[in-house]
Formats: sequence, C-alpha cells, structure tokens
Amino acid sequence: MGEGFGAWKMGDDAAMLAVVTSANIACGFHAGDPAGLLDTLRLAAARGVAVGAHVGYHDLAGFGRRQMDVAPRDLTAETIYQIGALSALAQAAGTRVAYVKPHGALYNTIAWGGPQAEAVIAGIRAVDPALPLLALAGAPVLAMVERAGLRPVAEIFADRAYLPDGRLMPRDRPGAVLHDPDQIAKRMLRFVETGQIAAEDGSALRLQGDSICLHGDSPAAVAAAQAIRRLFDAHGVALAPFAGAA
Amino acid sequence: MGEGFGAWKMGDDAAMLAVVTSANIACGFHAGDPAGLLDTLRLAAARGVAVGAHVGYHDLAGFGRRQMDVAPRDLTAETIYQIGALSALAQAAGTRVAYVKPHGALYNTIAWGGPQAEAVIAGIRAVDPALPLLALAGAPVLAMVERAGLRPVAEIFADRAYLPDGRLMPRDRPGAVLHDPDQIAKRMLRFVETGQIAAEDGSALRLQGDSICLHGDSPAAVAAAQAIRRLFDAHGVALAPFAGAA
Amino acid sequence: MGEGFGAWKMGDDAAMLAVVTSANIACGFHAGDPAGLLDTLRLAAARGVAVGAHVGYHDLAGFGRRQMDVAPRDLTAETIYQIGALSALAQAAGTRVAYVKPHGALYNTIAWGGPQAEAVIAGIRAVDPALPLLALAGAPVLAMVERAGLRPVAEIFADRAYLPDGRLMPRDRPGAVLHDPDQIAKRMLRFVETGQIAAEDGSALRLQGDSICLHGDSPAAVAAAQAIRRLFDAHGVALAPFAGAA
Amino acid sequence: MGEGFGAWKMGDDAAMLAVVTSANIACGFHAGDPAGLLDTLRLAAARGVAVGAHVGYHDLAGFGRRQMDVAPRDLTAETIYQIGALSALAQAAGTRVAYVKPHGALYNTIAWGGPQAEAVIAGIRAVDPALPLLALAGAPVLAMVERAGLRPVAEIFADRAYLPDGRLMPRDRPGAVLHDPDQIAKRMLRFVETGQIAAEDGSALRLQGDSICLHGDSPAAVAAAQAIRRLFDAHGVALAPFAGAA
Repeated sequence: MGEGFGAWKMGDDAAMLAVVTSANIACGFHAGDPAGLLDTLRLAAARGVAVGAHVGYHDLAGFGRRQMDVAPRDLTAETIYQIGALSALAQAAGTRVAYVKPHGALYNTIAWGGPQAEAVIAGIRAVDPALPLLALAGAPVLAMVERAGLRPVAEIFADRAYLPDGRLMPRDRPGAVLHDPDQIAKRMLRFVETGQIAAEDGSALRLQGDSICLHGDSPAAVAAAQAIRRLFDAHGVALAPFAGAA
Repeated sequence: MGEGFGAWKMGDDAAMLAVVTSANIACGFHAGDPAGLLDTLRLAAARGVAVGAHVGYHDLAGFGRRQMDVAPRDLTAETIYQIGALSALAQAAGTRVAYVKPHGALYNTIAWGGPQAEAVIAGIRAVDPALPLLALAGAPVLAMVERAGLRPVAEIFADRAYLPDGRLMPRDRPGAVLHDPDQIAKRMLRFVETGQIAAEDGSALRLQGDSICLHGDSPAAVAAAQAIRRLFDAHGVALAPFAGAA
Repeated sequence: MGEGFGAWKMGDDAAMLAVVTSANIACGFHAGDPAGLLDTLRLAAARGVAVGAHVGYHDLAGFGRRQMDVAPRDLTAETIYQIGALSALAQAAGTRVAYVKPHGALYNTIAWGGPQAEAVIAGIRAVDPALPLLALAGAPVLAMVERAGLRPVAEIFADRAYLPDGRLMPRDRPGAVLHDPDQIAKRMLRFVETGQIAAEDGSALRLQGDSICLHGDSPAAVAAAQAIRRLFDAHGVALAPFAGAA
Repeated sequence: MGEGFGAWKMGDDAAMLAVVTSANIACGFHAGDPAGLLDTLRLAAARGVAVGAHVGYHDLAGFGRRQMDVAPRDLTAETIYQIGALSALAQAAGTRVAYVKPHGALYNTIAWGGPQAEAVIAGIRAVDPALPLLALAGAPVLAMVERAGLRPVAEIFADRAYLPDGRLMPRDRPGAVLHDPDQIAKRMLRFVETGQIAAEDGSALRLQGDSICLHGDSPAAVAAAQAIRRLFDAHGVALAPFAGAA
C-alpha cells in the first residue's frame, strides 16, 4: 500500500486497511511519496493494522518490477535507508515498522538466495535484528534468514497462481494473477485447513506458511480480501497479524 | 558532505572530516546515495565528528539550490523521511543524527519564516523534538524554532560574503563565495573574539552565532578549514561540536 | 495526455482523443514514460488529432505543478530536449509535433513574461521557429512570442474558473476547477458566440481566443468534451485544430 | 561525453574534444542534463567532431552500468526518445547526431543479441534508418543490425582489457581498465597495422574494427587520446570519423 506517487494513485488503501491485519507499505523507491506514505500509515495506525517496510529497487519507472543488477553494498545501504525512512514516518503516524517484506523483482530475486539476499539481510540486521523478513513459502532465503539470526516468516499468495515446483507463475503469463474473489477465498481456506494449495496443473502443493498475501493494486483486491475474511469467519478461522507483527 | 551521487563525486569528505567537529550529511534528496552516505557516516563516526541531517528539496538536477513551491504537508513528510533514512544509516555506522540543518534553497527559504519553515519544524518535532535546528544567525526562523519548543542553533558562514542587512550574498553575484583560506580564518577569528563580521560594504555586522559553517564542495574547503583550525589553535580558541551535538 | 508514468495511469486518453481536435502530450518531464507517450501518439495519429508538446518542469513528484526557480539556460535546453524527444516519438507514430504548450506551473509562470518566458521561447526557436506557442488568452507572453518571430495562439480554459482580471483561479481555491459538463459547454458556446466568459464574480470577461482547452486528467473531462461537441454541433459551430496545427 | 549531471562533473570534455574525431554524447538517461549536453554539443560542433547518441538505461544512480530487465517495447520507445532529445539539442548546437552507440550495461547486453538488441534496433529504424549502430567488434549484434537494414560499425576499446574470446574483461576485475597512455597507444597502433590486439592471457585476438573507443571519464583519458594521436601521426596513420559519421 501507499503505492501512489504524487498525482498518481494506486489501489484503495482505505478499503483494504478495513479488512487486512498487516499491510506492506512502500518506502519511496519503487513507489510512494512521503506525504502519501504518512497518510497510509495514519490509516493503518487508526485501524490497528500492523505495517511492514515494502523495500524495493530504486525504479519508479518500472514500479520495482524489473530485475536490476544492484551491487550488494548498494542494496544493503538502500535497505537501511528505506527502513529508516518508513520507520520515522511510522513513528510520526503513531505506529512502528513491524517487519520487512521486499517488493516485486527484489522479492523474487532474493527468494533463491545469492548476494542480493545476503545484502538485504545485512541491511535489516544493521537497523534492527528483531525485524522479521517475509519471503515466499518454500524459498531458500528463509533458511538464510534464520542462519543470520533473523526471523523468517513464510507467506502464501492468495491471488497468484503457483507453478508445480512452488514458484509463482511469472506475471507476464496468462492466469498468473487470480481475480475471482470466491476462488481466491476457497484456495486460502483449503490452505489453512490442509496446508495444500493447487498448482496451475492441478497438482497439490504442500506449503508451510505463516502469512497470507494479497496485492493491493489489483482491481479485485478489496473484494478478494473481504471474501477471504467472510469465508474464514464462517469457518471459524481467525485472522491476525503473524506473531510479533502486532 | 556525502554529496556525491552514484558515479559522481563531490568534495573530499575524508580530508574535511579530519578537521571539522560537526558535518552536515546529505539525505538523498538534493544529493547522496545510500551507500555513499553510509561511507561518509562511518568516516564521521571514526573521527568522532558529530553529524547532522542536511535535509533538502527533492531536486537532484538542481542540487537542491532552486527554490521550489513544495506544499507544507509534503515538506513535513519529506523532512521526516530524510531524517529517518539518515538516522538508520547513522545507526548502522555507529553514530547518530545529532541535529538538522536544511540545505541550499530550503535553508534560505525557511530562514525568513513562512509555511515552509513551519513545515520543516513540524517534521523535526514528529521525529525527535530534541534535535536542534541550525539556521542563519539573525534569521527570523530561530525564534519560530524556539516557540515550537525545539532548540535553535545560529550559525555563521565562514566562506560566504554577507550583505549589510545580515543576509548572505546570493551565489550568482561575484564575490559571494570566499576562497582565500587566510582571509576566511581571520574573519572567523574576529568573529569569535568580537562577535563582529565584515559585510560586503565593509560595515561591521554584529551576529550571535553558535556554530561556524564551511561548504565541503568548495575547492578551497579543506584548506580553509585547516587555516581556521591553525589560527584558532594559535589564539587559544577551542573548536568543538556545539553543545548537545557531540 | 500521455500523463501516466510506468504502472500509474492518468485520464482516459482513448476516449478524449475520440472527441478533441488537438491534444497536448506530456514529454516525460512532469509525466509520461516513452512507451506510454508512443501509445498515445499512435492513437492521436489514428484519430487525426493534432499533437502539441506539453513541455513542463522536470518534477514528477509534483506533476509539474510546483513553481521551480529553474535557470533560463537550463530551461531553454530542457525545452529543446523535450520537444526533440516528443518529435521523434511522434515521427515513429506517424505524426508530428504541431505546436508547443507549456504545462502546469511553467505555463502559469511564463504567462506573465520574465526570464523563464524568454527561455522557453528561445528553446522553441532553436528547434523550429514555425512551432506556435499556446498561452493563456490575454497574457503578456503572447506579445513576447510575436516579437520573437514565433506564432502565439491564445487559449481559453473550458473547465477552469477565471478571476475578474483574466487570470485563472488558483487550483487550491474551491471552485477553481469546473466539473459540470453542461455548464462548461454553455460557457464555451457563449464564448465563441460573444467573445465573453463569466468571471467568478459574475462579471463578463472579454477574451481573444484561438483554442479551447480541457484537462484530460479531470474525472469529468470526457463528458465535458462530449457536451461541448454536442452543443456546438447543435448550434452549427465547427470544431477544428487551430490554423496550422492540423 | 556530456556525462555530468547538474552540479556534478565528469571527465574533461573540452580537452577530449580537442583530440578525438567522434564523441559519444550522453542523452540524459544514464547521465547528462540538457544544458550540459548542449554545452558539450556546441564544443563538438566548434571542433568539427562527429557526435553519436550514447543511449543508455534510465538509471542515474547506477550510471547506466547495471543490467536492467527493461521490456523491449519500453526500450524501443526509450531509444527513440533519447535519440530525438539529443538530435534537437545537436541541431540547436549547429551539428547533428551521426550515429548511435549504446552505453554501459545496455551496450554489453545487446552485444550478444536477444530481445533488447531487437528493441534498440527497432528504435533506431523508427527515427532514422540511416544512423549506424556502433557495437563491440566481433559481437553477434553486428549481423543483426545488418539484417535489419541498418549499418553496423565495429569498434575496438583502446583502454579496456580483452578476454581471449573477444569479450571485454568485466569492470570489477583488476586490470579491466588500462591506464598507461603509452601502452594504450601501442596496442592501438598494433591493431591498425596488424588487425591484432593482445588478450589478457597474451594471446593475439584478430578483430575487424572500424572505430577506436576511449572512455572520457577515465582519469587518463585525455593523456591516452593524445598518446594515440601522437603515435599514429608518427607512423603516418590518419585519424578520422568512421565513414558516414563526418
């Protein structure tokens, strides 16, 4: 959330913040201007929604969705910079940054480890080793986070299709983003009840997940979030920020 | 300091940090990339130099030296963002942001009060009301800072010519920037001994000042800093960070 | 038009291009990424809509709506750069830049003459002295343009309130932007029939105008454009690009 | 050249333009602000130096040296935009863009073909199919350029070490950039006399080259350029812009 920029809007933050329990807030590098971020953080604080630093590549033109060959030392400093900037805005809004979740291409790149993953982890450690790092359930980076003494949190994507090997289907393939709120809600109910999620070929993926992610910039985002909450309520599944993020 | 950007360098931070007692560090808006800022902050920490957040307009192309009609609510959020970003980098470097000093056109604009001055003060208050704000000796903003419950610190410019009314001579006028290290050192010795500084027309300005400022991007910056230190040492004048900044 | 940027959208260019006869296209400085500009230029070419270079301050965060103290020599070069960039994209799209219309704060600043007005005029002359410059009807810059040997085109704003002295009401005042399509259409019909337009205090302004401007980023933009076209058709008033722009 | 940005300088364009016969001029995406580009273009025009559009990734922070996963349709439009912008500035300076040479990571990426190479070629074709494209001698992109009906120009790097397979040694390896003017000059004399250049392992590479490239931002750039010119003069080798670029 907070992914507008100046005169440009993105998503309906107020509606989403009425439904979710945690919100990833842009930090100004892939999206988000300071005043807009402050507005979103105030809404989150008022709603009691936990906030995370959605750090990204410094690429407004590409919305952080293009892989960039950023040197590890630059990426570590950029991670620190973004977390610090959002933390100060969060404090001004009466809340605090409770976790870190990389955005877009950075999220995908570090999922599989490598120097950029080390760089992001080093950045979080330098700011606050108590900040959990959210990453794709099943991704190798989760073990790296643990070895570095940080807390990994695995997440499941409610509105994205999975490949049979557990990776997300790339955004440029048809069907990569799910739009039907009921289908999304049912996938998530199945997941929390059985630990399984259907891959694109129909096979059942077994995933360990601590958090459910929905994209706020998708047109159906609010409807999907509401559908999940309704279905979960009907089945007695409670929604809450993952432990430590509250 | 820290005013390079990517492949571009500016000033000789290492040499300056060997001479000064406080350093204004860019925050990425008018200059400074995160990795370069982290390097400069580490040098400052190693040298025991106090660091301040040199917040500026978001204008890399203009190096923050062009007046911009930024809305107060944007400017407050941008002040918070920049202080927060630099604070996190400072912490990673083993130091802390000890004060705030606006840069360039922002510095000049807020000196005379007005909505942008209110906006910067509100930003500092939201982050940490204990952070002093440095401003031009004699400028109306100093009283505003005090009324807002923050601590004002008045500063004298060693390497800039003054108009008879106490304002700095604009940069685009010949003689606005002083380059002779000996002349600069003598001006500053006179100032600390008498409270007086010569204006461009030769008249004596009487100024109340708590800090002496030198620009790190001027070619003669290091020589001027060393000349001041030598002359002050010879006359038994001790240099130190202003109270509270250490 | 063309005022999106990367993942961010702005206005409904396709719908507007079905109604208007000329379109001001962003040049990447206040808005517009190259691929989006190319798309909009192709649509304009397909519709036979004349296109103008909507040059602006280099300020994405402020959408070019904040006055900036840009040095004249910078502004001249920035004008040339933007016109050249858009011209190449226009050529690739099968059309050409037919005129220049400054955007936002730059438009307002140069309306009253001064060094920035001289700078923009110098930039246009350096690229192509045959390019007309659009400016606010009644503004002093129109005579400057003529003295410089360029062609001035005066324009009337359909969706903005006027002050009694002929200036536009500033955007931050209530009522500055008109939203009612019928009211807008009637104002414009009155203008083309009588040369008069109502100021905010009800007095009648007499303006000399060669072109009618509508903002594409306003929610009611398409409806207002359609209302004008319908009312003009009903009264036998033909719409066409101003002479030379076709 | 023209690779400063605002207050930041890079290289000594005036000194280089006194020695070289063609100059690659930044286009504002990896470096270069419009006013600085105009200054450099005027110098080039005064010296009779042919100018090329040094198009790059839109990445000021990385100086265009970081590989970016830019979509082909974006890259085509960005190529058109940059060539158009520089062409207009060149016209204002009394010269014209005579060829296109991609910069940094874009240069290296397209050397080996692929969608980004197709995208750059499509951009040049859309602006002016008569513009030659400079590429690394021996690189597959040269044949692609020819098949697309454009003119390929192969170039040799005077100040970079070569791997035995004809690729440039990556910049982050020691010895990648050569600094000794005499060594550089001798390498180039050997090349023009024998078509051979020594690879890092001492083996002789046989390369077909139409142009010799020197980096203007290297500290030894001017000395190396002068050394080549002196040695070539002494051996009766004439320097000139490659055919068509004059």
